[in-house]
Amino acid sequence: MSEATRYERGLAKLVEIYGDRGRQLIASLQDIAPDLGRYVVEFAFGDIHCRQQLDLRSREIATIAALTALGTAGTQLRAHILAGLHVGCTEQEIVEVIMQMALYAGFPAALNGIQAAREAFAENASKR
Amino acid sequence: MSEATRYERGLAKLVEIYGDRGRQLIASLQDIAPDLGRYVVEFAFGDIHCRQQLDLRSREIATIAALTALGTAGTQLRAHILAGLHVGCTEQEIVEVIMQMALYAGFPAALNGIQAAREAFAENASKR
Amino acid sequence: MSEATRYERGLAKLVEIYGDRGRQLIASLQDIAPDLGRYVVEFAFGDIHCRQQLDLRSREIATIAALTALGTAGTQLRAHILAGLHVGCTEQEIVEVIMQMALYAGFPAALNGIQAAREAFAENASKR
Amino acid sequence: MSEATRYERGLAKLVEIYGDRGRQLIASLQDIAPDLGRYVVEFAFGDIHCRQQLDLRSREIATIAALTALGTAGTQLRAHILAGLHVGCTEQEIVEVIMQMALYAGFPAALNGIQAAREAFAENASKR
Amino acid sequence: MSEATRYERGLAKLVEIYGDRGRQLIASLQDIAPDLGRYVVEFAFGDIHCRQQLDLRSREIATIAALTALGTAGTQLRAHILAGLHVGCTEQEIVEVIMQMALYAGFPAALNGIQAAREAFAENASKR
Amino acid sequence: MSEATRYERGLAKLVEIYGDRGRQLIASLQDIAPDLGRYVVEFAFGDIHCRQQLDLRSREIATIAALTALGTAGTQLRAHILAGLHVGCTEQEIVEVIMQMALYAGFPAALNGIQAAREAFAENASKR
Repeated sequence: MSEATRYERGLAKLVEIYGDRGRQLIASLQDIAPDLGRYVVEFAFGDIHCRQQLDLRSREIATIAALTALGTAGTQLRAHILAGLHVGCTEQEIVEVIMQMALYAGFPAALNGIQAAREAFAENASKR
Repeated sequence: MSEATRYERGLAKLVEIYGDRGRQLIASLQDIAPDLGRYVVEFAFGDIHCRQQLDLRSREIATIAALTALGTAGTQLRAHILAGLHVGCTEQEIVEVIMQMALYAGFPAALNGIQAAREAFAENASKR
Repeated sequence: MSEATRYERGLAKLVEIYGDRGRQLIASLQDIAPDLGRYVVEFAFGDIHCRQQLDLRSREIATIAALTALGTAGTQLRAHILAGLHVGCTEQEIVEVIMQMALYAGFPAALNGIQAAREAFAENASKR
Repeated sequence: MSEATRYERGLAKLVEIYGDRGRQLIASLQDIAPDLGRYVVEFAFGDIHCRQQLDLRSREIATIAALTALGTAGTQLRAHILAGLHVGCTEQEIVEVIMQMALYAGFPAALNGIQAAREAFAENASKR
Repeated sequence: MSEATRYERGLAKLVEIYGDRGRQLIASLQDIAPDLGRYVVEFAFGDIHCRQQLDLRSREIATIAALTALGTAGTQLRAHILAGLHVGCTEQEIVEVIMQMALYAGFPAALNGIQAAREAFAENASKR
Repeated sequence: MSEATRYERGLAKLVEIYGDRGRQLIASLQDIAPDLGRYVVEFAFGDIHCRQQLDLRSREIATIAALTALGTAGTQLRAHILAGLHVGCTEQEIVEVIMQMALYAGFPAALNGIQAAREAFAENASKR
């Protein structure tokens, strides 16, 4: 597959999962690190997220869990909570995933994850 | 609910998810930190994993993702990969979850997660 | 012990350590993840912090050290610095614990911990 | 070498690398943890950064990479990006180092590192 | 204070806390990074651990908590558990500190910390 | 550029940096996660490490620093220390980079990094 195809396929998947927010992320990198934006599209979305071996809902559950546990990527966690809602997770399911991280990364990680969920849920509600 | 009930409910859930390996973990703590074992049973399994708001398969996907991303808990990651197989994840799905962590925690985390999966899959195969 | 007793015991311990700030944390979770608040009360405070085998001052020193080293939980670090003052640590002792983390987690962790201490000390002073 | 000499040597190196921003960091610690500031000068700069076995440009590349990967020290990352520019790295080289961290610590770490670079580059431009 | 004095003071403190194990750590670095060993003696022990503002028992509680929470330094965690015993912590107190980390860094961190304690306690028993 | 070209370019770069060890890594993934090996070749080496904006020596310094600081990827750290030697870093320079991480990630991270260097240097010496 050519790079052009990977980019196009990745951008379509990015927009399917994130909506316009996805385009904005890529656009925001144009002035400083445009190739990082291109790799996000080509590799993260054109390669990984286009794989058929796992459904998008499970992929977002995995990402929300990992980012909650790491605790170093609040912006990205909020984006993936919105993506989770977009691909079919309920708010309650997302809260459960985050709460469960208290077991594996401690209560502060879960509490900060819940705060990210609160902000993402509010953003989602304001767009409907 | 009384503590006895939480413990019994938690132990049943622990064995449902982990099989005998779960009992062994708790037994291994008796000589040094028996209460930590009790909290694992009561809180992690009697409280969190008994919650109905998320299915066990999604819970294991979340845990496998988080432990792969954190990269500090190889023993527990192997245990949860076995648990994932036990509650209905396929080997391919587990590999996908771990591969995806390359995006969120880097390639070394994913490569070490795959090594944990290799060991867990072998242990699982040897028990059938 | 029944769940009601654990909750009551935990809430009393939470207020002993944190004062009203503890109640506010639990209240703030009511709209989105009330059970996470309940687990904080029952497990973190009703189970762990009620244990007699270690004094509260040592428990707060341990928590301040860990949260400074992890570097991912600024809100919780400030809360535990206030709790440390509340259970008898001096400001100087807390600064020492945080400074020592330069050895085990690096200077940025210690510098960010000191910034959290500055904010917590100011909040504490404003309440007297 | 006496402590006075280490302090003087360290302060000179700190100012060589950071300019006035270095003095401000040390001054900002005077009211709460002056000895932490002294150790930064004596040990971090008087001992480590004065070592001749590695050039300052390589040292800043190493630090920018590490702080981007850790993801817990935004303030210090911005300071070291400015220091990197100060000791001869180009903006493009710094962007490359940060982008490369997508491989070793994941895309969120790289994206947050790029955001730190954007802010540091702007601060640097405003001072010229 | 001259460097010689810091080194001597640090070495005495290192041996006070760690016994011969401390000397072995420094000796083990002679062939590859002798200056790192020197900095451990001078800065970690000659500067930080000689400070009077916090007792050694509290310092070891802080370090055991931090290393358990970080989960990346098993060798050092075992050494500090031995040091904790050496400066007056009981085995039970050390187990409590580690168990408490389940709250702040998750159960896998606590379980791995308990395993380190088991090994350190056995080493300590074999030396008596 | 087509995928075939990215793969070929990436494999050539992988072997340039790692020698046969690089081929072995990819081969070791064939039975369980062959696509992860393909992404390492295509994205990590065909995309990132082929970029001209930063020299390979600086890239390895960045990676050694990051993996030392993270402390969760011993296998990969050893591989990158060998790669660093391969692209022109001296043993002394690598030791300096690792020592410097004591400042940014703490002494345990630096000490464990030095242990990785010891093993990598021995492996390198045995192959000459």
